Amino acid sequence: MSGRVINFGAGPSALPEAVLEETAKGLLNFRNTGIGIAEISHRSKEFTAYLEETQALIREQLDVPPTHHILFTQGGATGQFSAIILNMLARHRLLHPELTADERTMDYVITGSWSKAAAKEAERLGGARVNTAVDARPYSKDGKTFDNIPLHSAYSFSEDPALIYYCENETVNGVQFSHDDAAPESFPYHLLPKNTLLPLVADYSSSFMSRPIPHLGEHAIVYAGAQKNVGPAGLTIVIVRQDCIVDVDAAAKLGASPVPLAMSYKNLFEGKSMPNTPPVLAIYMSGLVLKRNRDLGGLQYYEESNRIKKEKVYGVLKKGEEVGLFKGHVKEGSGSWMNIVFNVIGEGKEAEFLKGAEAKGLTGLKGHRSMGGVRVSLYNAITVEQTEKLVEYMKEFLAANESAVAEAPVEV
Amino acid sequence: MSGRVINFGAGPSALPEAVLEETAKGLLNFRNTGIGIAEISHRSKEFTAYLEETQALIREQLDVPPTHHILFTQGGATGQFSAIILNMLARHRLLHPELTADERTMDYVITGSWSKAAAKEAERLGGARVNTAVDARPYSKDGKTFDNIPLHSAYSFSEDPALIYYCENETVNGVQFSHDDAAPESFPYHLLPKNTLLPLVADYSSSFMSRPIPHLGEHAIVYAGAQKNVGPAGLTIVIVRQDCIVDVDAAAKLGASPVPLAMSYKNLFEGKSMPNTPPVLAIYMSGLVLKRNRDLGGLQYYEESNRIKKEKVYGVLKKGEEVGLFKGHVKEGSGSWMNIVFNVIGEGKEAEFLKGAEAKGLTGLKGHRSMGGVRVSLYNAITVEQTEKLVEYMKEFLAANESAVAEAPVEV
Repeated sequence: MSGRVINFGAGPSALPEAVLEETAKGLLNFRNTGIGIAEISHRSKEFTAYLEETQALIREQLDVPPTHHILFTQGGATGQFSAIILNMLARHRLLHPELTADERTMDYVITGSWSKAAAKEAERLGGARVNTAVDARPYSKDGKTFDNIPLHSAYSFSEDPALIYYCENETVNGVQFSHDDAAPESFPYHLLPKNTLLPLVADYSSSFMSRPIPHLGEHAIVYAGAQKNVGPAGLTIVIVRQDCIVDVDAAAKLGASPVPLAMSYKNLFEGKSMPNTPPVLAIYMSGLVLKRNRDLGGLQYYEESNRIKKEKVYGVLKKGEEVGLFKGHVKEGSGSWMNIVFNVIGEGKEAEFLKGAEAKGLTGLKGHRSMGGVRVSLYNAITVEQTEKLVEYMKEFLAANESAVAEAPVEV
Repeated sequence: MSGRVINFGAGPSALPEAVLEETAKGLLNFRNTGIGIAEISHRSKEFTAYLEETQALIREQLDVPPTHHILFTQGGATGQFSAIILNMLARHRLLHPELTADERTMDYVITGSWSKAAAKEAERLGGARVNTAVDARPYSKDGKTFDNIPLHSAYSFSEDPALIYYCENETVNGVQFSHDDAAPESFPYHLLPKNTLLPLVADYSSSFMSRPIPHLGEHAIVYAGAQKNVGPAGLTIVIVRQDCIVDVDAAAKLGASPVPLAMSYKNLFEGKSMPNTPPVLAIYMSGLVLKRNRDLGGLQYYEESNRIKKEKVYGVLKKGEEVGLFKGHVKEGSGSWMNIVFNVIGEGKEAEFLKGAEAKGLTGLKGHRSMGGVRVSLYNAITVEQTEKLVEYMKEFLAANESAVAEAPVEV
């Protein structure tokens, strides 16, 4: 489409053009109702049917077991940080009313900015002791940054925590758990407390629907903001196991913190994801994306295309490392498929790299404000062809700078 | 536009077609960035500028004083029910750390479903005694329904409450406070505690931007979901006076309930309405609506057109009442400009009325599921011409049924 650039931004992120064009039509007339999707009543039979279809598309493509409900809400990961703590503490209170706040624990696996922020919210809200099951920083190259998924030997879980929290893909830092259980960078399921109703919670915000979710059925909660692989910002998807939808008011009577109504999973579940007005337009666009996903071949299609994309970028990154022009941020084996973070070595070279990319219509490559550097986000809507354009540019940049690098002092 | 009906629904509600067409363009390319509005980074300079422009449009059109900040968030009125309680209780705790929960009060003015739900949330969250400053039901025609704004003599406020809450327009019940201070149905400002920093909170969800807000500067908080007069569902606008943006963590240390980060006004304010990803697309569409409002003449324009519209509908409603075919739900003087609720008298007549309306492309007229009857919502995007089409239909219905009514027994 004329004038469109390739958006490698970390989110909100690129959406398929076919979906944008379909949305433009739906804005004026949704499913022949004569009413636009942003205007239609969420209680109309047309919209409630659409919402249920959208949930069914997620269930089908992710193979969500019947033990788990799919809920839609608002507020993003930050809202869920608190909702998870409040609902899971209420659940734990109902299971173990006799425990004091000091005897109750919440386990956090800290591998980057987002899991760190989630743990900070647990400290803020209180009601239980926060146990850092692991902090990846001591295991990093310099002993203080988030650049790795720690080895299994580094973890230490509580015996019966109210929740065990991790972030599957750290968007800012570019680290992601391996989906191969045999890899040292996988999540250590075998070390978790033996409990058929494990309180395991995963933030999948930036990798949701990019490939299958391993061990999904063992999770209490898997959640994601829509704005990476699914739709526009404004919709949050929460997959919750039935036993985690608890009577928060009964728990409050036993001493748990009261849960704001909009954060109660029970309220959300009983109101069929719309006890109050849901983000109708965001749900609509997410439904269009999910339908398109299915038609393309579902998560098998995306897993394959995302694998190809990340291999191409990591490949040229490696070449750049060999000649000392690029420097990957993340330890080998811990690299994300979705967000690839690296530096360009040499004075002014990073700015030159980003500027050259912009000139070619390759945008959104600037790293997170807390990290600097370059970040390549390869969400579903980025095609293999678009990735090849970036890789081509990286190769050109390498070729143009290789001789200069040979002479310059290397920064790290 | 071909195929479009006239949507008198109570919300999400009609949007101007010009805005829908502009949105369709912005979805593909926002302000010549080459990136669609649903895809662009909320940290981009183009979007942050747009967000600030949108806030400025609200400030200008509503004449928001410099003492008040305009914040954008998610979660609708239900989210704000809790956020208001938690932030205002934190504020009260900091002002009066010595008081017990029993000595602390929250005053609720209950005039319909929404204010009742807000008061219920205050009971749920606890931390203070809920004082019903007034309940309109005993003052109704049948002693038990929400059909009126009570007389000033009915109110009883606490001396130093943490908050005083009312809902300016009750969408479900069709009652609204008069904007004329001399009218008995006005809000009783003169009865409020004498305090230059009054903790007065108003839910303006269904009347926001339909006309000026009286006594805006005397409010601590005025809030509204966007989905009636401003934009699509997914954006909540909160106008907060500076002194109500408090350090909720300091208050928690003094014993107040901890406030989920996403509900802290301080977090929202310091993060410039996007401490986390905001609902970018909903903000975009709201900005387009607000720009269009300004170009049409701002709130003066809408006040005038909304006055004409409601007078037309109340006019034909009165005619129908005289012949016993219609029966308005609300007491004279308490009727909403935005949502007009009435019954059609006679067996099967209401269904016939609604069916006939649908056949003419007049939709969304069915009353709220808790109320039944007919509800005509006349939000800004409904034009005088569209209102006239409805009035014309109501007149035809009257003419066709007048003789039948004369013979039938009257239901009430």
